[in-house]
Amino acid sequence: MALIVQKYGGTSVGSVERIKAVARRVAKWRRAGHDVVLALSAMSGETNRLIALAKEIQAHPDPRELDVIASTGEQVTIGLAAMALMELGVKARSYTGAQVRVQTDSAFTKARILGIDQHRLRADLAAGVVPIVAGFQGIDEHGNITTLGRGGSDTTGVALAAALSADECQIYTDVDGVYTTDPRIVPEARRLKTITFEEMLEMASLGSKVLQIRSVEFAGKYKVRLRVLSSLTDPEIPIEEESHSGTLITFEEDENMEQAVISGIAFARDEAKLTVMGVPDRPGIAYAILGPIGDANIDVDMIIQNASTDGTTDFSFTVPRGDYQKALGILEGVKAHIGARALVGDNRICKVSMVGVGMRSHVGIASRMFRTLAEEGINIQMISTSEIKISVVVDEKYLELAVRVLHKAFDLDQVPA
Amino acid sequence: MALIVQKYGGTSVGSVERIKAVARRVAKWRRAGHDVVLALSAMSGETNRLIALAKEIQAHPDPRELDVIASTGEQVTIGLAAMALMELGVKARSYTGAQVRVQTDSAFTKARILGIDQHRLRADLAAGVVPIVAGFQGIDEHGNITTLGRGGSDTTGVALAAALSADECQIYTDVDGVYTTDPRIVPEARRLKTITFEEMLEMASLGSKVLQIRSVEFAGKYKVRLRVLSSLTDPEIPIEEESHSGTLITFEEDENMEQAVISGIAFARDEAKLTVMGVPDRPGIAYAILGPIGDANIDVDMIIQNASTDGTTDFSFTVPRGDYQKALGILEGVKAHIGARALVGDNRICKVSMVGVGMRSHVGIASRMFRTLAEEGINIQMISTSEIKISVVVDEKYLELAVRVLHKAFDLDQVPA
Repeated sequence: MALIVQKYGGTSVGSVERIKAVARRVAKWRRAGHDVVLALSAMSGETNRLIALAKEIQAHPDPRELDVIASTGEQVTIGLAAMALMELGVKARSYTGAQVRVQTDSAFTKARILGIDQHRLRADLAAGVVPIVAGFQGIDEHGNITTLGRGGSDTTGVALAAALSADECQIYTDVDGVYTTDPRIVPEARRLKTITFEEMLEMASLGSKVLQIRSVEFAGKYKVRLRVLSSLTDPEIPIEEESHSGTLITFEEDENMEQAVISGIAFARDEAKLTVMGVPDRPGIAYAILGPIGDANIDVDMIIQNASTDGTTDFSFTVPRGDYQKALGILEGVKAHIGARALVGDNRICKVSMVGVGMRSHVGIASRMFRTLAEEGINIQMISTSEIKISVVVDEKYLELAVRVLHKAFDLDQVPA
Repeated sequence: MALIVQKYGGTSVGSVERIKAVARRVAKWRRAGHDVVLALSAMSGETNRLIALAKEIQAHPDPRELDVIASTGEQVTIGLAAMALMELGVKARSYTGAQVRVQTDSAFTKARILGIDQHRLRADLAAGVVPIVAGFQGIDEHGNITTLGRGGSDTTGVALAAALSADECQIYTDVDGVYTTDPRIVPEARRLKTITFEEMLEMASLGSKVLQIRSVEFAGKYKVRLRVLSSLTDPEIPIEEESHSGTLITFEEDENMEQAVISGIAFARDEAKLTVMGVPDRPGIAYAILGPIGDANIDVDMIIQNASTDGTTDFSFTVPRGDYQKALGILEGVKAHIGARALVGDNRICKVSMVGVGMRSHVGIASRMFRTLAEEGINIQMISTSEIKISVVVDEKYLELAVRVLHKAFDLDQVPA
């Protein structure tokens, strides 16, 4: 008899039929005696439709009003899901973010959850009712409607699980877990039964779209046991089977981890790099370069500065490709201002990263990675490392090849011993 | 400098362009120094879309959950309208029923407004902000979302005007006022500059779709000055002109009324009548007949019982045509039970009503009405009167003819002296 929070994403509630399938799945868990709390997304496409409508009126919609509009998508889904459960004889009741007091800050369109009132939820659970909470939304201290930003329903699910000390937060989605890499590139890619929070953070931020990164941080902070699993399976599959499916995101110290050195290979397309050459090596120079970039709301990913040799250095960083021209324009001004020698850039690059907590205790991972790429004639343009990750920038035309050869070289298609 | 509540219906906010037109109209009133509060409907078609979606899941949707879903339509509109006003440089802020505390009872899908918290609205007005309130919806004492039923946005507008003691509640719609009768039947039908609350109640309940009847009752109870006017005019028409357009629904005692005896002719199609003949004339017999009809949720309109002659009487009433067969079946059982002689019915009838406060002090209206119909060979099947109304039931094929000849006979196309 466990307390489970289940979150279903937009595709999983994308039609009346899918919502009915969700209800059948939840009814199965209820029949087995488990307490279930639901967090739901808007039906797929709905949030985009609402935002497009707002943009017909304001090119840059007022954030407060945009949240009033965008939050309606989830409100429709929770009502429909409550009805679908009732049709199966399961007691259910829907709640907007405001009703169940998902308290957030006032950062409209990207608010952060501060707390959830568990009073109503506990009362419902005690009465055998499945509370269905609108994901993605909350309310600030002034009673304004807020939204959590893209993928925010994951965070709602995790926050509910944290508030209720749930036994597990199950994130149902249209993939069946986290893979060693994208199966569209490497058909042998293998689903990971477990992955640590740290690895998941690296994988998520590096381009794996399975979970919203903030929800992973949240789960790590509040020690929420998190499982990613598929809503496309038969809703009636045995609970014993379902509860071991997907990928469990877990804490290294308290779970039986697979013993792989490398867990997966993440990648990011559509990157661009910029290098300011011959930069005078003096304090404040990094800020002089990146300050204006940040002011222009351009996200910077990798930042590399080589050791100084002749009193000048080369300063490189990567940005999303769409911001490349804008960044280049800004740097032209900066270059003159700081007295740099030259400015070069490349907007046809990509980033490939190997992620694994096992990396910490194993030397030689990096050299094996570099040798594997060299054997295929793939030139490495930039390198960046963290404790559990090595990222390289290569020409974008090598992306698939690099991912494939690394996947094979590190035996990621094999279940580790 | 007046305080005006403006309510815009579904057609008036039915597209992005229409919402922008609403914003231009409101901006004009603001420029002239007036305080404006808005109550808005959902975009036309949206509420039907949401209810249809719910019915795909439950043939008879759970009322609480249906309200959660249906209330999202207005929530989208208020956000869009706030943005449209901001685009014109007018400060605006949207509120759901819950946010501005439109307190209602818990009768989901047909809740009644108990009160509105004017705190936020007053603060906004003082700060030069146009508060935009979602029509049709409220919140009960437990924090559940409720809706007021079809046309409920009118009631929201009137309730806002009552709570704020507004100078006028302007109901913008796709017609330009209340007419002496339906202009599709009588091209000479004339727009009324004023109509009393009592007349409007009779007109509304008799088939004129301009205003929701509950909003008229509400306006009467709280002495709200109510105006029906068109949102299809140029948004920039002079305020002096606009503020005298449409139809003012007013109190006989405190306005300059037109002196017509008859204000208008209302009608209802799709009616059916049932007569129980030879009913023993004893106490409780009316209840014995209508009790089971009411229990079956069939609305009864006219009820007529003639004086008893031979110790038995004939008891007749009308129902919506769609309920005719059901009512007939119920009466078959009742007939045997009460020992009535026979049961007859007709489902091809309609009702034509003449309405006017002037009727009170004028004899001969009824006889003139009956003579006019007789001259056209129209047989009157039932008659029912109130202080300000005479209704007759006639064969449905005579509806248009009856309305036309009465309109002419009572000079309704002429502005009264």
